[in-house]
This record gives sequence, structure tokens and C-alpha cells, in this order.
Amino acid sequence: MTVRAAIVVTGTEVLTGRIQDLNGPWLADRLLELGVELAYVTQCGDRADDIEAQLRFLADQGVDLIITSGGLGPTADDLTVATVARFAGRELLLDGPLEVRIAEILRTLMAGRDGVDFEAVMAANRKQAMVPAGAEILDPVGTAPGIVLSPTGDGPTVVVLPGPPRELQPMWSRAVETLAVQQAISGRTEYRQETVRMFGLAESGLADTLREAESRIDGFSGLEITTCLRRGELEIVTRYEPPAAGAYAALIDLLRDRHRTELFSTDGALVDDQVAALLAGRRFATAESCTAGLLAARIADRAGSSAYLVGGVVSYSNEAKVELLGVDAALIDEHGAVSEPVARAMAEGALARFDADTAVGITGIAGPGGGSAEKPVGTVCFGVALSGRPTLVRTLRLPGDRSDVRERSTTVAMHMLRNELLSLPPD
Amino acid sequence: MTVRAAIVVTGTEVLTGRIQDLNGPWLADRLLELGVELAYVTQCGDRADDIEAQLRFLADQGVDLIITSGGLGPTADDLTVATVARFAGRELLLDGPLEVRIAEILRTLMAGRDGVDFEAVMAANRKQAMVPAGAEILDPVGTAPGIVLSPTGDGPTVVVLPGPPRELQPMWSRAVETLAVQQAISGRTEYRQETVRMFGLAESGLADTLREAESRIDGFSGLEITTCLRRGELEIVTRYEPPAAGAYAALIDLLRDRHRTELFSTDGALVDDQVAALLAGRRFATAESCTAGLLAARIADRAGSSAYLVGGVVSYSNEAKVELLGVDAALIDEHGAVSEPVARAMAEGALARFDADTAVGITGIAGPGGGSAEKPVGTVCFGVALSGRPTLVRTLRLPGDRSDVRERSTTVAMHMLRNELLSLPPD
Repeated sequence: MTVRAAIVVTGTEVLTGRIQDLNGPWLADRLLELGVELAYVTQCGDRADDIEAQLRFLADQGVDLIITSGGLGPTADDLTVATVARFAGRELLLDGPLEVRIAEILRTLMAGRDGVDFEAVMAANRKQAMVPAGAEILDPVGTAPGIVLSPTGDGPTVVVLPGPPRELQPMWSRAVETLAVQQAISGRTEYRQETVRMFGLAESGLADTLREAESRIDGFSGLEITTCLRRGELEIVTRYEPPAAGAYAALIDLLRDRHRTELFSTDGALVDDQVAALLAGRRFATAESCTAGLLAARIADRAGSSAYLVGGVVSYSNEAKVELLGVDAALIDEHGAVSEPVARAMAEGALARFDADTAVGITGIAGPGGGSAEKPVGTVCFGVALSGRPTLVRTLRLPGDRSDVRERSTTVAMHMLRNELLSLPPD
Repeated sequence: MTVRAAIVVTGTEVLTGRIQDLNGPWLADRLLELGVELAYVTQCGDRADDIEAQLRFLADQGVDLIITSGGLGPTADDLTVATVARFAGRELLLDGPLEVRIAEILRTLMAGRDGVDFEAVMAANRKQAMVPAGAEILDPVGTAPGIVLSPTGDGPTVVVLPGPPRELQPMWSRAVETLAVQQAISGRTEYRQETVRMFGLAESGLADTLREAESRIDGFSGLEITTCLRRGELEIVTRYEPPAAGAYAALIDLLRDRHRTELFSTDGALVDDQVAALLAGRRFATAESCTAGLLAARIADRAGSSAYLVGGVVSYSNEAKVELLGVDAALIDEHGAVSEPVARAMAEGALARFDADTAVGITGIAGPGGGSAEKPVGTVCFGVALSGRPTLVRTLRLPGDRSDVRERSTTVAMHMLRNELLSLPPD
């Protein structure tokens, strides 16, 4: 049976494109995992009439589940709960225990801040304790509670969640466990979803392989495949019903066969996950010029990275390369700051300065200025140094603008590092 | 008069979040510039019934203009034109000259490629030359033509554009010039839009001030205000018609009066813009522990930053703090790595090591581990050192998860840096 859902993202700042909506795509993934078909994602402004009209439209379309995000704050333009109540024909009631709970949260948040009038803040936040009659309350992660509203008549179940992703995501997990949501999604088709990642393959190369797969693999039509380029990597997501598992296995075999060097993940793991695992027990350091700390920050993004990340140098100026990393100034004079000898010296300098056993050096021209005929914008040199081995160096020309080149450089560095660490003999 | 528009983005890859929609935000900006109010941006999959239902809903809501993107390709799941024709009650007709034009484009594209059956490609692309009766054709930028359909009865004007942004954008410019679109948006109101930014103010504090503004400022209801939290800052965007300019000026006066220290931008400039201007002619360096390069990377994000960014040290380990920044190991033993004395020593160490005149030190506990009762997760110490001045230090407790704490720390550092630089006597 097909169970259909829709997402309504509220907020003028999202509608007008000033803030990128992260909740629609995230919730879309969660619905996909649940085997629920997504009919629409609609963004609308903080206007009650527009939100209510959209809810009525979705109910008329017979969707089983509506999820809203945003509009739960204390200000007057936060009106999602009142609008959902009107849509469902429910009265708004002050929930006493919830008001106490929100007061506790605010008291903790404001502890130690001077000059805050607690009563004024509580008055502003009282509206967050108003909930539609009969609604199930989802405890706040920030200060805004969510609600789950079971259907009125044959209407949809409505889940109301706050806008900030770090609040919405855990609250969605709780919403899914409620009886109202479980009833709305009962009887759905079971789907599996698998993710494969590749690096260094053009989209058209993958398209060729998929055409071959279509003609060679029995039951290929049972695989719903979407591909996209993300951070310089190709991500291939396949959704299928359990009987198509054989066709999926055949697809993976074909991808492995055709793209052995490019395929780096068949279990959804990111290169960041793989590098983190490979760095365990090691001492890692960075020497960054054009990326200016992005690689170190990417490595440090994982909890627990302090076990292997010793530190790094952002050597933006030539003096910093010489003074802090011990790069020979003559090397810079002879080859230029963006060159393989300098990338090598930076990586080896980081190895020495941080007493590390693994280091990466990056030096490049991110643009928009600084390019030349010989070294155009996008030219980036990489060095990967492992103690006791010759340092690997490589030069690439990366596409895109300043921000693309810097971001893409960290991805290239992650893959070079992964390959070098994988090539080490086992202990 | 308010002219309202809606955007319908089609494509299962967008709906499921595999591909980020860039057309909705881009078109939203263009509509804003035209003074057209945007009611909805809806993403729907490649399903004719869903698309048609959404078009009917929007027509029922009385929108004057609908813009669709995507679904114009040669494959079977590209069905926007046929769906729009059915919605408008128009027959689909083969446009002879358009078919010839598409053939020319394809012949050019395929020139030099081997093994392509031109007739087969043309057959697949013939459907792209089928247009609703009475439609105005927008010449293709890629291979897909767009169309503009003037209203049937009192319905909306519909503009149908291809999905790839580099095709959609120039074709939108042509669409705006057509008579049907000009008629749809004639009589629209002129709007102004202004942005104010604050730092260090809670949303509820702003809500109080806005309530006061509502009761004190004549014509306040003519201001359409949206507020949002972004990177730890409050962004307040106000849209108004020219006669409400006086009310807007009164609002700014009130904000300045109530939140002098928190209000840092009334012209939309980001703190990054302001810091970049203040750093001109200086030599800036960073010393980062928990942010591990994020601050240096944020500074380097601007083109031209190499004029003032000398470099930085990511001193993730204590040894790195001692070896590379010259922090006294006894200081770490006595106060802990996350302490104001260490933040001060890091900033001053960066000043010395990079021969800089401006430096920031950041050391904190980003979590999830590493917190204690005395120094819980989110505790971050900052030091801002300007040569010839006592170093400013401060400790904050920042909310959120690891990634929030690290990101927020860079924003705090930017504001501390801005304030210190602003407090310098003029040259």
C-alpha cells in the first residue's frame, strides 16, 4: 500500500531563499527510509492564510501525514501551532505542565546572564505552551515543543516540528514513535535504500555503466536509482523492494568491475569515516595554504579526533611557510609557493614540527586573482607524508570558484590520505 | 496592488533531496526585485497528477503568475509541458519551426561524436517541440525550449522553464519581457527591503522591543518584519512600501536605542565584511584549538584576504600549544588547556610567531566528551591580542552540539575582534 506524506516548511526567510532549507531534504530521507512516498515539499511564508490553504490542499489530496517545520518561536510571526489548530478545528489550550517545563529550560539558559528580565521572557514564551486540544506534546530540545495531532475525521496526521535542524531531528525520532504517526504509516511498502560513493569518475561515465546495467541485469527496472555530485564525489542512492535485492547485488558487482579505483564506499560510509578509522593510533598534522584550516577543521569535525589530530599550521604567507614549517625559502623562490616541491616540504615540515607520523600539505591558487597561464586559478598541489616513506605529491586543476576550489581541495586531500594509509602494510 | 506568484519545482531528484534546488531561491530573489510577492515554492515529483493538482490549487488561491522549473527533457518522466497544457485546457501541437531549431542544436551538439543515431535522438526530442496552443515559445539555451502561457479566463500566467540553472536563468530574463508576464505583474507595488543584524541578543529580547515598536510607532503595521537566528546572530529583514519609510526609520532608532551594543549592522553588511575592512593594512594570525582552523578558513573565505591573513596554528594538542605557540606548559598544568590564561598566551604566541599585530586565540570544549562540572561542554575561552595593548580575554558557554559550538565560536571571535579593532584610536 502506498502511504503518502507531505512536508510544509514555513518561514519567510526560507521562502525568500535567505536561509537554505535543510529540513525538507532531511525529512525526505527519513520518509524514504520508512517506505513512505513523499508527494510535496512546500515552502511558505509566515502567513497564516497561506499555511492553512496549503494544509487544506494536502488534506484534499488525501495525504496520510503532514510534517511542518518552523514557526514555533516566541515572536508574533511564529504562528504554525495556531494555524494547525484552526486547520484541524481544535481549540488552543494552555498546557500547565508544559509551561513549567519551558520555564525550567529558560531559567537554565539564562543562568549567569545579567540584566535579563525573566518574567518578560516567560511572558514572551508563554505562547509556546499553547497547544491544540488533544495534541500529543513532543518535549522541546531547544525551547519550542513540537506536537503530533491525530486525524480529525479522515484527514491526515499532522506533526509540527521546530525549524532549527538540531531540534527538529531528535524530535522527529520521537514523533515517529507516537501512536498517531505509527497508525498513519501502517501498511506501507517496505523499501531498502543503499548508498554507493565514487571519487574521480565523471557523471557521464557512470551513465554509460548504468545503461549497460539496464541491458544486462535481470530485474534492473526494480531499482530506483538517483545519482548526484556532492563535494566532488558521485553519490548513487538506490531504493528497491526486497525481491530486487539480487538485481542490486548484480549492479554492485558491475560497478566494482568497471570502476574499481573510483568506487570507495558501498555501505554509505563517507571518506571522512574511513579516514578517521585509518588515522586511529596515528599522529596527524596539517600544513595548509589555500585551504587555510579547512582540512584540519574537517578532520576535527568528528568527535574523538583529538586522539589523532595533533595540530596544523595555516601558512598563508610565504614567511609562515618558512618560519613555522621550515620550508626552504630558496625552494619557494625557485618553484613558486604553489608547486610540488613546496607541497612536499610543507607536509614534511608539519611531520617534523608536530612530531607526527602522518601529514598533509596543501598549496594552491583558489582565485579569483593570482592565476597565471602556467598556473591558472584552480591549480592545487598536494603532499602526503607518512614517516619512513617517500612523500606522495600531486598537482590538480580543480573547477569552480574560490569556495569550490578550497572545498574540493579538502576532498582530494582526504582521498589521497585514504589511499596512502590503505597502502601501508598491516602491523 | 499586491501581485502574487508561486514557483513549482518538479523533479523526483529534487523532491527527495538528492539534488539541492537552486532555482527556487534564485527565482524568489528575482520576484522580490520585481516587487512581486511570493506565496509558495513547492517541490513535487515527476508525477502528472501531483503537478496538475498543485497548479489548480495555486490558481484557486488567485496567484497571478506561476513559474515551473524542470521536466522539459526528452525522456518519459519529463511531463511538465503536457501537464501545463492539460491544466490550461489547451491542445498540444507540434511546432514545425521549433522542431527544426531543436534539430539544429542537436546536430551541433553531436558533431564529432561517433556512433550516435541522429534520427533516434531527433525522435526522442520531437516531444520537446510539442507546445500548448497559443503559447509563446522561449528559445532554448540548452535543448529544451521554455513557454509562456497567457491566462485562460482569470487564471494565472504560467512560465515553464527548464531545470538546469544555467538554462533557466537567461530564459527567465526573456520570459519577463513577454507581454503575458508584463500584464501579470503590471500594477505591482514597489517594495524596499532592508536588513539589520544583531549579536548577543536573545530572540525573546527582540520580540519585546518589537512589541514596544508596535504600540509606539505610527504606521508600524506597514512594515513586514521577519527575524531569524543565523550563525548565532539575529537577522531582521523588513520589507515595506515607500510611504512606510518613516516608520522604518523610527524602528531603526528604537533598535539603536534599546540595543546599542548588540546592533552591529543596519546596511546588511556581515560581520565578515566589517572585520575584513578593519583588518586592511594589518597583519592577522590565529591560534585555534577547538575550532581547529575554522576561524582562519572563515577569514580566508574572502578574496583578497592574503593581504592581511599571515597564518595560523591549529594547536589541538597541548604539545602543539607549547611547541608552536610558546604557551608555558606550567600555565596549562595550573589552569587547564581551556582557560583564559591559555587563550591569552595562545593569542600572544600567534602575535609573536607570525610577527603579526592582531591575533585571536580560541580554546574550548566542543564536546561531546571532555566536559566537567566546572567546565561543561560548550565552555570556550577567547583571547584577542593587538600589539601594544593588553590582551582581551573572555569565557562563554555556547549552546548546541559539537558543530554548533565550533561554528558559534568563530562568530564570537569575529565580534570580539571587530569590537577591539573599532576601539582603536584613529591613525
